[in-house]
Parts: sequence; C-alpha cells; structure tokens
Amino acid sequence: MTDLEIARAAKLRPLNEVAEKIGIPAVAVEPYGRFKAKLDLTAAPSGEKRGKLILVTAISPTLAGEGKSTTSVGLADAMNLIGRKTILCLREPSLGPCFGMKGGATGGGYAQVVPMEDINLHFTGDFHAITSAHNLLAAMVDNHIYWGNALGIDVRRVVWRRVMDMNDRALRGIVQSLGGATNGYPRESGFDITVASEVMAILCLANDLQDLEQRLSRIVVAYTRDKKPVTAGDLKADGAMAVLLKDAIRPNLVQTIENNPVLIHGGPFGNIAHGCNSVIATRTALSQADYVVTEAGFGADLGAEKFFDIKCRQSGLSPDAAVLVATVRALKLNGGIDKNDLNIADVDAVRRGSVNLVRHIENLRQFGVPVVVAINHFSGDDDAEVDVIRDVSRAHGSEAYVCRHWAEGGQGAVDLAQAVADLSDKQSAQFTTLYDDDLPLFEKINTIATRIYRAEEAVADPSIHQQLKQWEAAGLGHLPICIAKTQYSFSTDPNLKGAPTGHVVNVREVRLAAGAGFIVALCGEIMTMPGLPRHAAAEHIRLTEEGVIEGLS
Amino acid sequence: MTDLEIARAAKLRPLNEVAEKIGIPAVAVEPYGRFKAKLDLTAAPSGEKRGKLILVTAISPTLAGEGKSTTSVGLADAMNLIGRKTILCLREPSLGPCFGMKGGATGGGYAQVVPMEDINLHFTGDFHAITSAHNLLAAMVDNHIYWGNALGIDVRRVVWRRVMDMNDRALRGIVQSLGGATNGYPRESGFDITVASEVMAILCLANDLQDLEQRLSRIVVAYTRDKKPVTAGDLKADGAMAVLLKDAIRPNLVQTIENNPVLIHGGPFGNIAHGCNSVIATRTALSQADYVVTEAGFGADLGAEKFFDIKCRQSGLSPDAAVLVATVRALKLNGGIDKNDLNIADVDAVRRGSVNLVRHIENLRQFGVPVVVAINHFSGDDDAEVDVIRDVSRAHGSEAYVCRHWAEGGQGAVDLAQAVADLSDKQSAQFTTLYDDDLPLFEKINTIATRIYRAEEAVADPSIHQQLKQWEAAGLGHLPICIAKTQYSFSTDPNLKGAPTGHVVNVREVRLAAGAGFIVALCGEIMTMPGLPRHAAAEHIRLTEEGVIEGLS
Repeated sequence: MTDLEIARAAKLRPLNEVAEKIGIPAVAVEPYGRFKAKLDLTAAPSGEKRGKLILVTAISPTLAGEGKSTTSVGLADAMNLIGRKTILCLREPSLGPCFGMKGGATGGGYAQVVPMEDINLHFTGDFHAITSAHNLLAAMVDNHIYWGNALGIDVRRVVWRRVMDMNDRALRGIVQSLGGATNGYPRESGFDITVASEVMAILCLANDLQDLEQRLSRIVVAYTRDKKPVTAGDLKADGAMAVLLKDAIRPNLVQTIENNPVLIHGGPFGNIAHGCNSVIATRTALSQADYVVTEAGFGADLGAEKFFDIKCRQSGLSPDAAVLVATVRALKLNGGIDKNDLNIADVDAVRRGSVNLVRHIENLRQFGVPVVVAINHFSGDDDAEVDVIRDVSRAHGSEAYVCRHWAEGGQGAVDLAQAVADLSDKQSAQFTTLYDDDLPLFEKINTIATRIYRAEEAVADPSIHQQLKQWEAAGLGHLPICIAKTQYSFSTDPNLKGAPTGHVVNVREVRLAAGAGFIVALCGEIMTMPGLPRHAAAEHIRLTEEGVIEGLS
Repeated sequence: MTDLEIARAAKLRPLNEVAEKIGIPAVAVEPYGRFKAKLDLTAAPSGEKRGKLILVTAISPTLAGEGKSTTSVGLADAMNLIGRKTILCLREPSLGPCFGMKGGATGGGYAQVVPMEDINLHFTGDFHAITSAHNLLAAMVDNHIYWGNALGIDVRRVVWRRVMDMNDRALRGIVQSLGGATNGYPRESGFDITVASEVMAILCLANDLQDLEQRLSRIVVAYTRDKKPVTAGDLKADGAMAVLLKDAIRPNLVQTIENNPVLIHGGPFGNIAHGCNSVIATRTALSQADYVVTEAGFGADLGAEKFFDIKCRQSGLSPDAAVLVATVRALKLNGGIDKNDLNIADVDAVRRGSVNLVRHIENLRQFGVPVVVAINHFSGDDDAEVDVIRDVSRAHGSEAYVCRHWAEGGQGAVDLAQAVADLSDKQSAQFTTLYDDDLPLFEKINTIATRIYRAEEAVADPSIHQQLKQWEAAGLGHLPICIAKTQYSFSTDPNLKGAPTGHVVNVREVRLAAGAGFIVALCGEIMTMPGLPRHAAAEHIRLTEEGVIEGLS
C-alpha cells in the first residue's frame, strides 16, 4: 500500500476523544474540518511542565531520506504502546515544496499523522495568516513612505522583504513601485518563502499572545538616513499583525494513524529558519504528557543546534534526551556510494559514512544531552551493515536500535521507545547551550562554525563585521545566531559529505530579527526562496473523478 | 452599542441546527471553528431549483454608505420572520480593504452576520487558497521558461500576473527575476488584489469541481512569439490548482444574529471583478429555500449588470425580483450637497439626487426584472425627504419601503419583505440579458456604455480593437464583458454624481479570462490593486488584553 492508501485506511477517532485522552477537555477543541482542530488555550488546562522533552534529530540528510518525521511518529506511537503517555509535537509543512519535489512532513508507511493531504496543503491556515501579517507590514512600510515618510525612512535601507508560501525563484529579486507616482518610489526588494519570515519565528518563539505582539512591535523594517532603526511598532502595524495571528497562535491537534495525539504547530526549514515547532505547543504538551517527542529540522548540525541555542535558550525548555536518526542507505551515500548502487550491500561504505553519524553524536553531547541512535530500517538493509552502525554508536557512547515503524507502526519501535523512556527517566541530561549570551556576535558564528561544523573558521567581509558591531553597539549583542546554510553538509558546500574538516564558513549576509530575537547569518549559497525543479511535482498532482487527491506525497 | 458589541451580544446557535432548519443534514456541516462551517456537498441533498431568486443591489455608492449588505441581512431576517423560508447568499470580504478604510461586509447594527471578526479576517481560508492557486500557476509559468521554455512562451507576452490579498500599491508594477541567471529572465510584471484574480471568478462561476478544473485548464497565461495562446492546461498546472481549491469550492455556512442561515461564498469587488457570490452557493440555497436573497457589488450599473450578464447568463439562473437600496443621505450627495451638510434636511437635494435612483430603476427594468426600492433609514432622515424617494420611485413604476433593520433587526424590514415576497410570487419577471452572445466584443462594451452608463460612446485605441478582433478570430467572440471602472459614477469619472450624460467611456486595456468565460475591459483610471490610505485602519486594529479585537469595522 502507498502512504496515502495507508492513511486513508486508518480509522480516525473524533478529536475531542483524542484530546480527552491527554487531559484536554472537549470544550478546548475547536474543529477545523472533521479531523483537524485548534486548541483554545484559554479553555485548556495550563500547567507546569511535568513531562520529559525528547528531541528527534538526524544525520546529514541525503537523497535517500532518513525518515526523521517518520521516526518521530513511530517513537511516539511506540511510547504510548508501552504505557508511557506521550504527545508528539511536529512542525507544519510548507506549501511551496509540496509542489516542488519534497514530500510532505507527516511521516510514512505505518508511522503517519493524518489527515495527510490537509496537513500538507492549507491545514488550518497558519502559514497563510503569517504570510498576511508579514505582507501587511511590508505594505505599511511603503505606504508610510508614500504618504510623506514622517519617520524619515531611507528608501535604500528598507530591510523588510515580502513573503509567499511558494517556490518561486522569479520573486527573489524585484524592483517594485514601478509605473509612476501613484505607485510609490521605485526600489529594489524581493520575496522570501513564508517559513523564512521573522513572523514565523516570532509565532514559534512567543510565550503567548501578549509576547507575540511585543515581539512583532520590535521587528526592524528599515533604517533612517542616519541609520536609526524603524520598527513595526513605529508604524503601528503590530496590533493589526497580532489580530491576523490570533488563531494561528493556537496549536493544531491531529492524530497518528494509531490515534495518538499530535500537536503540529510552527515552521519547518531548519536550513534557512530556526526550524522548530512552537514553544506554545511544546509547553502545552509538556504540561499534559509524561513524555513529549519533538523534532528539529534537517541534520543535527542545523536543527538540533538551533533547537538548543535558540528555542531552549529563549524559552528555558531543557531537553532530557536526543534521538539521532540514521539509515544504512544515507550512511552509504555519506560513504561515497553512488545513489544507483544503494541496494548493493557494502559494509565498508557504511563504515566510511558513519563518520557523519559520529560527529553528530559528539556534537549533541556538547550540549549535555544523552543520545540514542535510531536505525530507521529499510527492507534491503543487510544485517552486517546494521551491525556497523550499532558498533560505531556504542564505541561513541550511544546505543543504537533498529526500528521498523515504517512497516509495523508503533510496535516496530518498541525497543527504541523503551530505551528513550529509560534514558529520559534517568535524568542524566546536563543541558547547556553552545555559547554564552555575552560572546561577541561574530564569535558566536565562529563558535558554531568551528565546534559544530568543524570548520577552520568563519569568514566575512568587513561590511558584515561592521554591521554586527553596529548591532552590538545598539544593545543587540546578546542575541543568539540562526545560521542559514545548506543542509546537505557540515560545510557550506552541499557536495562535501561525511565529516569534512579544513573548510571555511563564508558569511555572505547577516539579517537582524529583533522580534524573533536572533541574528540570521546566511552562509554559502543558501537561498531564502527556493525554486521549482525542472519537473515539478505540481504537474502530477490532481483530483481523481472521485475527488481523491493524486500525486501528493 | 457598536456593531461589534451587538454582534458579540448575539446568541448564536450551533451551525448544525441552523443547517437542519434549511434541510441540510448535520453530516454535511464541516465545522471551521465554533461558528463557521463548510458544506460538504457530497453529503448535502442536491436538488432542482425551487426557490425564488432576489437580487439586492444599490444606487451609486457614496461616502455616506448605502447599506446594501445590511439591507440584504435585514430583508432575509424579515422574510424568515413572516414565515418565508429564506437563505441569504453573500460574498466573502477581502482582507486587504479591512486594513485600508472600507468596513467589513457583514452588515451593521441589528442586521448582521456573525462571527463578524472571523468572516472579515481569514474566514475559512478560501481567498488564501485562491491566492495560492493563482501564484502557483505564476511560478509554473516562470519555471517553464527557466527550464528551457519548451512551449516557446514569448517572455514579453506573459499575461498572468500574481495576486495578493492586500492593498499594496508598491506591487502594481514590478520587474521580476532580477539577480542573475539562477533567478530567471528579467521581465515586467505586477500584482493584482486577489479578488481580481481570474481564479476567483472561476471559483464563483464553476458548476462543480470538474467544471472548476476544466475552467482552470483554459486560463491563458501567455502567448508564443507567433501569438498562439499558452494555457494553464499546457503547463499541467490545472490539477494542482484544483487540489488547492478543493475545500474553497465548498460554500461557507454562518448565521445572522437572528439565527437565520447565510451562505457566504465567493468574491466581492464589483468594480474590478464580476463581484457575485458563487453559483454553487446560490444553487445550493435555491434547492433548499423558498426564497434566496443575494447581492452584487457596488451600484446596479456594475453589480447588477454583471450579475445578469455574466452570472445568470453562464449559469442559467433567472432572477425573480431586484431590490434597489437607497438612502436619503446618499441621494443628497448625488444631489450635490457637501458631505458636512448631510444632517441638514434638504428636500430639493434629495429630489436632484434621485436622478441617480431613477436611472438605476430604469436600467434594472431593461433586464426584465421587477424592482422594489428599499429606503435604508437613518435616524436623521426627514419624513419629507423620505417621501420624495417614495414619490419618485412610484412615478417610475417601483414601490419604495422604509426599512429600519439597522435599528430593529428583521422586524424593521417586514414591509419590504412582504412586498418582495409578493412581487416574487407573482412571477412577473421576464429576465433577459442586455446583449446577445453573438454581438461583436466591442459592440458589447459599447452597449453597456450607452445603455447602462448612458455614455455617448465607448472609445479605445486601435490596439485594443485589434486585440478584440484577434480574440473573435480565435473563437472567443461569444464571451460576455466584465467592465472594470469606478463605482462612484455611471461614468468613468468618480466625481460625476447623479445621472451624467454626454460622457465617453475610455477602454484603457482589455484582458482575456478564458477560464472564467469573460473579457475584462478596464475603463478610466480604475486600478486592479488598491493602495492604503494615509491613515490606514490597520494602525488602530489591535487585540485588547482580554484578547478582543478592537478597530475592525
């Protein structure tokens, strides 16, 4: 059966039943269609953290796919199977890549979150709300300039771009306001994909609606001629933006095909964004469950580092364990095997590729978090290959467990679940962030580059150093860093597999996200607006005559 | 009490109760939040038309406001009060103008549709879905060119712009694809507001999901160097677009504050779009109710003409009566009174201004539809002023009724309701469109200009005549016309109040909407992307500490 067929065959339960299973009363469940809901937190019991927080992360991604989401689902289902009350917290998929080539973000096989099509399309409209709030601010910037520019915005120094939840390379760089006086003052600008919006990060990091509005007001949209920042608050845009986000800030409740509760809330894209689900959803889950399983985007160099250094730092959340997902196939690719030879057993290739796994284990341990390795099993995997992963992991202080949740559902990940629960219960984590708040900004970038990416150093043009110093002088030096770089390598070169050393991290551009509370450092060739591939998935997505969606994966 | 306070004080009923009141089973009601729902038409009883169709339209709008939506709500509530089973069909508001200066589209006073804030903001996400579908097609056009342009699109002749549901003048004219080879081929382009999207019109005019997809495939996005059209179907975009619209095509169910059912579905903006609610919603309502009250955008010169000549022509729907909304204040403005003197009784000014009313009555009668005039009463209206409207209406064959639904709810519009019901029951309508399908395209434009706008003639540059002739040669000559022009005057000059004659309608641009099935003729200075005013409403919209929205009207 295909993923979609399995999802459609699942027997879903009414969401108020699913909610009550985790102590959330039916009155707090606002349905959005039959099997999606938003939680009305004013009606939900709020409470102190009582659950253990488990982060699922992965080795560097490859074309073979590692199954981070799938493993998260399998693990959560398995933990519930063995009697550990567990809530899964995932991120919402972006619409753009669904029409490009990436699959959805709802797991696969017998480890899936449903309704898969709805979640992967508009879901409950959160990303559309973020897009609207972001672009309202952009319209208000240009409108302010148009009507006399009382705040003295330097039109050459407007830093607030627009966003769209679409893979559309044609919008990366534009000249806007053309066509004459009634259309404003022409200037260069462009669009990012919605997940890269600071508004997305703010929604994910806000403690509540009040905090959301305050963060929105701090967004820096432009500078004056004498380089003073102009904020969303100065433009009086924060109130209307918060109104646009009043529903989006509520976590979404759905279920796994084994009817376990899942909160899906906040943005993906750990390469260009901070890529974590929302603090509000994680906290809500921690107040209701004994264990909360969550995930962070792409490999642990990006996702886990940002989860620890941005999300946990800002929110005070503290992880109890990390699960590092690996596959035989992905390690083979890291070991230099061609993608067409993946089905040939090759123990040496797995061993060569496992340097990538080892480095991620070591990195995670720098944060004081105990690590379990999940070997996401594929049918063609050879036992000897699997043994290599187990041996290498153990040699570096982590146990590895084979998981067959894709084929067997939660039952296939019971060993992993038991190990994760036991490890969390031991409370052996001594969580620490990678760097202190008071380290100079460029030193923070350099610390991530050398200690996580194991580069020789981070380099940047003098103009970037100068910009960072200006922000430090403006009292923003305490902010953490959100690196944007390729997910395919520890380095900024997507072709450097394994565990490269000796490379240099080139900081191409820095962007202030004063509301989200971090500074984005764009490294290498990474783009904040993807393009569609030559053969876009969209060309094959359609409705059958019975009204069933085809081609969405 | 303010509109918002009245709306919040209303006692809402569960929507499945409201649905069952009109024969729609609870199983067909998919909730979106507590008091919004989508109708699952596969579960709803479909059936033949049995209800009478009543169009609410208005005199030329002024700053004073005429209350077309408010009167539609009051009329529907009143008809239900007098025992006539009635469903109201309205259009969804656009998000953009909510942050500009226009109020929402949910009525006012004691004649309101609720939940007002939700309907005026994201509602059930229909417009976001339309925006996504439209912009996916745009991305696929540029992506096709980027990857080799196998269809031979002439990059100078791409006619598919992008859309955003925002008032953002800076996006009217852009140069896109800047920044180097990876971003494509630079070209001029721009954004319209979402309601002006052909996808919006297609959603409103489609008979069902299959028809929707077929219409989408017919959208012309560009021309080749030898001027052959390239369609969405050629780009294989229609399937994915239909998937994005699979929920948006379902009518939305809400209720009036008197708990009567309202279907809100499809787009507003009778000035730049065709501005009618969806055919699907209207048909669904007609199959369930004895009377269906609907509205069309702005004055009858735009809204009613398009309702008859586009929506009714394409769908075969036939109106039984029209209600023409007028106010004393708006007629005074049409009579040349300054807006600061509106509170001074001035019978002569009303009489002078009533030429506008008379012309709309005459125009409506050209379509063979009997007309009732609704005098939407304001507290300062003088009895003698009201009498003028009554006398003038009667002199032109229409009875006029004073309505106090704003202050009194349905009870205040019982006289109007009785008159409308009686007139519809008489079946005196002999509906006819204004022009035949086989009239040449420019002759159609000229017919609307001379017979509805009472202009001397329509004029256009030779290039426009040539374009229309090319479309005729391509077999598109049978399409009706969708005029885009200012709503404030019969002419293209917003300052020409009353009933101007001797003016000329200047056709500035023509656009083909082959999927929607009409040709847009942009006349005068009308813009398809509005801007924000100097003091945007957004600056005052905010959430109170109790989480209540302020400033949204």
